[in-house]
Amino acid sequence: MSNNRIQIFDTTLRDGEQVPGCQLNKEEKIEVAKQLELLGVDIIEAGFPISSPGDFDAVKAIADTVKEATVCGLTRSKKEDIDAAAAALKSAKRPRIHTGIGASDVHIKHKFNSTREKIVEQGVWAVKYAKSFVEDVEFFAEDAGRADLEFLAKLTEAVIDAGATVVNLPDTTGYLLPHQMHQRISYLYENVKNIHKATISMHNHNDLGLATANTIAGIEAGARQVEVTINGIGERAGNTSLEEIAMILNVHKDLGFVTGINPKYLYPTSLLVSNLMGMPVQANKAIVGANAFAHSSGIHQDGFLKHAQNYEIMNPEDVGVPSSAIVLTSRSGRAALRHRLSLLGFDFEKPELDKIYTRFLIMADERKMIHDEDLKELVG
Amino acid sequence: MSNNRIQIFDTTLRDGEQVPGCQLNKEEKIEVAKQLELLGVDIIEAGFPISSPGDFDAVKAIADTVKEATVCGLTRSKKEDIDAAAAALKSAKRPRIHTGIGASDVHIKHKFNSTREKIVEQGVWAVKYAKSFVEDVEFFAEDAGRADLEFLAKLTEAVIDAGATVVNLPDTTGYLLPHQMHQRISYLYENVKNIHKATISMHNHNDLGLATANTIAGIEAGARQVEVTINGIGERAGNTSLEEIAMILNVHKDLGFVTGINPKYLYPTSLLVSNLMGMPVQANKAIVGANAFAHSSGIHQDGFLKHAQNYEIMNPEDVGVPSSAIVLTSRSGRAALRHRLSLLGFDFEKPELDKIYTRFLIMADERKMIHDEDLKELVG
Repeated sequence: MSNNRIQIFDTTLRDGEQVPGCQLNKEEKIEVAKQLELLGVDIIEAGFPISSPGDFDAVKAIADTVKEATVCGLTRSKKEDIDAAAAALKSAKRPRIHTGIGASDVHIKHKFNSTREKIVEQGVWAVKYAKSFVEDVEFFAEDAGRADLEFLAKLTEAVIDAGATVVNLPDTTGYLLPHQMHQRISYLYENVKNIHKATISMHNHNDLGLATANTIAGIEAGARQVEVTINGIGERAGNTSLEEIAMILNVHKDLGFVTGINPKYLYPTSLLVSNLMGMPVQANKAIVGANAFAHSSGIHQDGFLKHAQNYEIMNPEDVGVPSSAIVLTSRSGRAALRHRLSLLGFDFEKPELDKIYTRFLIMADERKMIHDEDLKELVG
Repeated sequence: MSNNRIQIFDTTLRDGEQVPGCQLNKEEKIEVAKQLELLGVDIIEAGFPISSPGDFDAVKAIADTVKEATVCGLTRSKKEDIDAAAAALKSAKRPRIHTGIGASDVHIKHKFNSTREKIVEQGVWAVKYAKSFVEDVEFFAEDAGRADLEFLAKLTEAVIDAGATVVNLPDTTGYLLPHQMHQRISYLYENVKNIHKATISMHNHNDLGLATANTIAGIEAGARQVEVTINGIGERAGNTSLEEIAMILNVHKDLGFVTGINPKYLYPTSLLVSNLMGMPVQANKAIVGANAFAHSSGIHQDGFLKHAQNYEIMNPEDVGVPSSAIVLTSRSGRAALRHRLSLLGFDFEKPELDKIYTRFLIMADERKMIHDEDLKELVG
């Protein structure tokens, strides 16, 4: 662990964009890339250049546009893939080729019909070939989460020797538990002798709802790059959410890590990606969901009005959300009702407030959500 | 840790239903409660009886309806709350009163304007008063996640002595990291001498995206009840998702825990709750999202078609999802194209397939998602 700066590698435009219904055109991809740079991500994975002519063009256009961030293109361990990525990234100020191959026995046997020895050979070849185009080469060991650990250590050592600057160890199927991730990354730090020459990267899928926790566990064990997407979009149940990792490291200063993310762009970036892709974010999504900072129960509203810190560990303004919202329902208490009424210019004290509250509860049971017009009707 | 059976406490109808826009009428609540019983939950938190006449009636109706599961009502540590809950639960076969009070210094000072000593006194009184109505009394120590640990141990011991059968230690603000949760629950197991007389319960909020991981960490440290909701709905960023906990314990048999959940009802229950509440589940939600079992990238589709286990740790059928979906996009490879064409009755071999694939990529860049009609046009 050389330092406490976590590199944020955003793959919204690659792992996110490949999802059914999430495809963007070139202009939209450029807009997202610019926003990601404003947000402060370190690496933008712009696409998979060999996969289609449109994706090749988009990676090229992003390489032309982005000024500070590293621009990265995905490849398999194949000559034509690496050639395409190198061509697409030619104009990038900081180009990176992201190549790799399956590392678990199930992938080696059933996907590549290969052997462990041949996989190491092909991986080493791919890194060296990519190095002939760019200095910054990241290697992914696909399905590392289910790979034999001793073999994974051997593969990691070999690709670092071949020149990989970053080794990405994806939990491709979203299988691991956080303590298992911690043990596996710790094992590699103990058993790969050249591991400090490269950055170890986390790329975790959310099939069991554990991507964020696994990524934090990986950081605690030594990983210094995290592969994330806006709103957690990506294959199947998606990737680790950028906004969750950024705010965990921000709220938990006790962990001692920093990122280059400016949190006030988190919510605007979430909105942009959701709107361009037509992918709604559920109301109860952490950090960026419509209800993430809304208090509705009577107990919560009362406590929140007394002292926001009772129920908030973050300020919504910090992540670019206009302000904490109070919504009245049949679960709202007297304190919230009085507060909302006073904002509308009505000040009531007991026992009048009690009478209005009784009528409010009946109305709220009928109408579910109580808006300002309903309140005016109630007291009018 | 007396056993390996995890009690599933569902609070969809209380912590979930209190969310803006999620209110259900009495008939809808009864429908959800019946479905929860079919799914196999152990405890149904049916509502907060004192909060409104409608909620009181709904808890009463659910108590009348549910046959096997425990039916629970929430209260503050107040006489009128406990009286209302006891009245609403009168006809329940297995009634439980869930009472409690704030346990963190920020709640004690800024919400209750009280002292630690008075909080213990009030909590003990509430448990004893609830015990005068029902045998099964659960105590919640609100904001336990930020409470002083030594004080939390003292409070836990006192309420167990007073007769609490379950002690719920909520991370009310969604603040903790999994390793912190593990340390805190372990501390209580080491320092509360009567702790084995009660069940310790997890109730974690998802503000930082860690509710599921924190709940698993709590189980690993000794907790044997988990408070969860369908689709993870609930205050702000929501609660721990029932479906994620159920499937983690199901997939990770290595953890050695079992639940009473029948996974094949997970997806139907998710659909029912989402439809009744009008709360969409995002496509990349773990287990129950529309894309949770969809494979779109060429690499993934190719691997999945060769051997489903390459990319799936669960069968969609196991959780009640009809079947794994393959959607074609510009990121789809030749293997997926050939597979889909063969389902439509077209069998092509190289080099004809290569030509069709080139035309397919151009079409996919334009149209984003490729449906069967598009494929027929392509080859026709």
